[in-house]
Amino acid sequence: MGALDEGHFAGELENGVKLGSSELDLKDESETTLEIEDAVKILLQGLEEDSNREGLKKTPLRVAKALREGTRGYRQKVKDIVQGALFPEAGLDSGVGQAGGVGGLVVVRDLDLFSYCESCLLPFKVQCHVGYVPSGQQVLGLSKLSRVADVFAKRLQDPQRLADEVCSALQNGIKPAGVAVVLECWHIRFPEIGQSCPDLSHQPTKMGMQGWVRTLVYSGSGVLENENGDVWGDFIALLKFRGVNVEKNHNRTSANQCWCPSRSLDVPVSNGHTSTRNCCKVSSKTGPSHPAMVSAVSAIIRSLGEDPSRKELVGTPHRFVQWLRNFKKSTLEIKLNGSNSAKPIMHNENGNASCNHDEIHSELNIPLWSQCEHHLLPFHGVVHIGYFHASGDKLIERSNLESIVHFYGCKLQVQERLTRQIAETVSSVFGVEVIVVVEAHHICMISRGIEKVGSSTATIAVLGRFSTEPAAKAMFLQSVSDGPASGDR
Amino acid sequence: MGALDEGHFAGELENGVKLGSSELDLKDESETTLEIEDAVKILLQGLEEDSNREGLKKTPLRVAKALREGTRGYRQKVKDIVQGALFPEAGLDSGVGQAGGVGGLVVVRDLDLFSYCESCLLPFKVQCHVGYVPSGQQVLGLSKLSRVADVFAKRLQDPQRLADEVCSALQNGIKPAGVAVVLECWHIRFPEIGQSCPDLSHQPTKMGMQGWVRTLVYSGSGVLENENGDVWGDFIALLKFRGVNVEKNHNRTSANQCWCPSRSLDVPVSNGHTSTRNCCKVSSKTGPSHPAMVSAVSAIIRSLGEDPSRKELVGTPHRFVQWLRNFKKSTLEIKLNGSNSAKPIMHNENGNASCNHDEIHSELNIPLWSQCEHHLLPFHGVVHIGYFHASGDKLIERSNLESIVHFYGCKLQVQERLTRQIAETVSSVFGVEVIVVVEAHHICMISRGIEKVGSSTATIAVLGRFSTEPAAKAMFLQSVSDGPASGDR
Repeated sequence: MGALDEGHFAGELENGVKLGSSELDLKDESETTLEIEDAVKILLQGLEEDSNREGLKKTPLRVAKALREGTRGYRQKVKDIVQGALFPEAGLDSGVGQAGGVGGLVVVRDLDLFSYCESCLLPFKVQCHVGYVPSGQQVLGLSKLSRVADVFAKRLQDPQRLADEVCSALQNGIKPAGVAVVLECWHIRFPEIGQSCPDLSHQPTKMGMQGWVRTLVYSGSGVLENENGDVWGDFIALLKFRGVNVEKNHNRTSANQCWCPSRSLDVPVSNGHTSTRNCCKVSSKTGPSHPAMVSAVSAIIRSLGEDPSRKELVGTPHRFVQWLRNFKKSTLEIKLNGSNSAKPIMHNENGNASCNHDEIHSELNIPLWSQCEHHLLPFHGVVHIGYFHASGDKLIERSNLESIVHFYGCKLQVQERLTRQIAETVSSVFGVEVIVVVEAHHICMISRGIEKVGSSTATIAVLGRFSTEPAAKAMFLQSVSDGPASGDR
Repeated sequence: MGALDEGHFAGELENGVKLGSSELDLKDESETTLEIEDAVKILLQGLEEDSNREGLKKTPLRVAKALREGTRGYRQKVKDIVQGALFPEAGLDSGVGQAGGVGGLVVVRDLDLFSYCESCLLPFKVQCHVGYVPSGQQVLGLSKLSRVADVFAKRLQDPQRLADEVCSALQNGIKPAGVAVVLECWHIRFPEIGQSCPDLSHQPTKMGMQGWVRTLVYSGSGVLENENGDVWGDFIALLKFRGVNVEKNHNRTSANQCWCPSRSLDVPVSNGHTSTRNCCKVSSKTGPSHPAMVSAVSAIIRSLGEDPSRKELVGTPHRFVQWLRNFKKSTLEIKLNGSNSAKPIMHNENGNASCNHDEIHSELNIPLWSQCEHHLLPFHGVVHIGYFHASGDKLIERSNLESIVHFYGCKLQVQERLTRQIAETVSSVFGVEVIVVVEAHHICMISRGIEKVGSSTATIAVLGRFSTEPAAKAMFLQSVSDGPASGDR
């Protein structure tokens, strides 16, 4: 599979830091942090936000720290990690075979990592599986396979390059008989920038990993270079025990081409760079190319130790700005289709459970995408809305509730405020007593600092009788439990 | 539920460090590390290991660093974490209800943590769910709920105390209307120290979390203090969405009494301390109380900033030594029941798949418990063994294979060596060509440093025709895939 390229990684192992196309000084932390902070302030201004308001005051510092931490791989040395972690381990005493320090395949599976997409600067989730075949009667401490993978994950990356770099670094760092790396990668897809520009009302309720773009890449070297070889077959068999299916005939090139959802929006522009086109519903949010914001993102990339002129990064500032501007502060009135007019629902649409007990109606699993104002990172999940209605009255159209959720999602937010705003708007627009539950995964909880991969946050807002009648609230919560689970839960 | 005790936690929030019953100076890192290193060397000597052999040379340093890191909560300040992370967030604009910064419940679910059992010093896994009800138009940054929980998890703990401390620290630190904490905790159970002293041959193949001791504890304060209250009901309902079942009528006291499996082995001794009794099969490994080792463990506890005379810690050094001595270096010959005599298997025992294609027999999911020599921490999982046998020949009794796995597990190990040793022994004792696959979860990969909760390691050893005939190896690996999955996979 040709990932092994000693020359390419000699620099890596010598200096420990992979440099871009030009040699970049690694500035000290406080200087870099200040540069990124300044750039983030420009981005907030570009979104017409007041960067002095309480929720945003420390956002530049938080983003700078998180980005520094999330790209610490530029400052880490593979040599330091594997040094002292190679242990002498005898092979078989006698007889024909492979085991121990000689030829007995070692595989570490299901390592959860996060990386940053070099095309759009959003984090992507990686499930990493690494195998190697010991030689020279030496084995590597198991955690080092994870640590080496993380050095390259904590950079601006593309899945295939990440797999190749991890593979080559291990091959050169520990000189085994062979190395294999399989990565399953998931990239968040925003409704705003999705190629097919999905109408949310047609989106199924499964908005978890199912809503993400998935790609599978692999890389091998030495006795694991040939994917038709026996050792590769053993490696894949051991992954299969864990339910990892490595599709045969996987076409790496085509997978890369459509990997980042934002790439599909690129249109060539005259200066040879790429620009992005927009397919958002709220098209008034987009405008010209916002040169100050684009320059600010270039400055961030440079501060991280990367070269913004590296060909894979050329369009990145444009794409990041394009994505960010979906969350531009907006005072647009919500355009509700037929607001205040409701029609009777004849059947359960979109697989949602409706319950008419005590005249409470539940609309479950309305998809949500939003942007955390503390970290400038997405959070996504589902919204459940319940309201009282008089028997025989028309129900609120689900698409109207979806529009409200979408509108309040499309700004810099915190989940608690979002929950309240949805409740207040549903109440005032439709004149109902309402309960709103939001369940969301926060990328900032997953990709940064605490790295709590499986965590999710639930918030409740209650208005009117839902706050005074515990039985009504309990009945609604039960309807959520009984309803179809969303992929986001 | 009475966890709130302002007085008790005033010290915590003032000084940030919870002190034991006496004030202990927090020594600087290098001094502490050296003290722990010296103590670990004494433990290795007590196990009759050569602490200068390659695999163990750096074990004292690794253990010291990992323990320092794993108990960093003693040196962290809750105040530093919540400070600056409280954001003004308006409540509802009008109307009766709760939302936003006033009374709208906020719950963060499924936070994976690790803590250290104060009874035996082994890590235990925690799934943490934290909720609070904002007041004063303030909300806490979501990640802080996890960070505060981690401050207390990274100490020597008991589940109920951990829940109470997290609850009280949040109540006092952010002054909300109420806080609730639910913890699901799992403690590793060793065959050697299990109360029922299970015969491995009667053990089912499900040795994953099913083999662990589970307890569920909770704590509440303010409006969440009363578990019959409405808000508590909302909190539990939101956990139920994630499949968390909080049993009603849960008896905390009895759960605590039998929580740590090593506690059940305690017998009172004359000096008022507790001693431990042993129910191991390899009883020759146990002996007197090993005062040097016990003192070394007391020294470690003191170095971490704890008071070894705190009543919950009094028996801990004994228990840790007791557990460690299960892995004492041993040159005992394996006593195989009827070794070299095999009986025909009339049916698939223990739910294992047997395949006779090409005369390969597979024994799957043999339970494994062992001890990582690099970190002095357990690894556990399953072993799959395949061997060629002539048609009509008797098969090797499963209990004999289990004994071999058990014998090689009961020492300071690395998985690669263990895999080879099992293969060599099966081959030499029974005169067969053999393939061995070991799949294991390493606590050192989960609880320390890299914290890769879901990761697992697979290793292969092949002897004779399994190394020269790829088809034979592939056939065996397929039989593992087709066989019943173990709880450890």
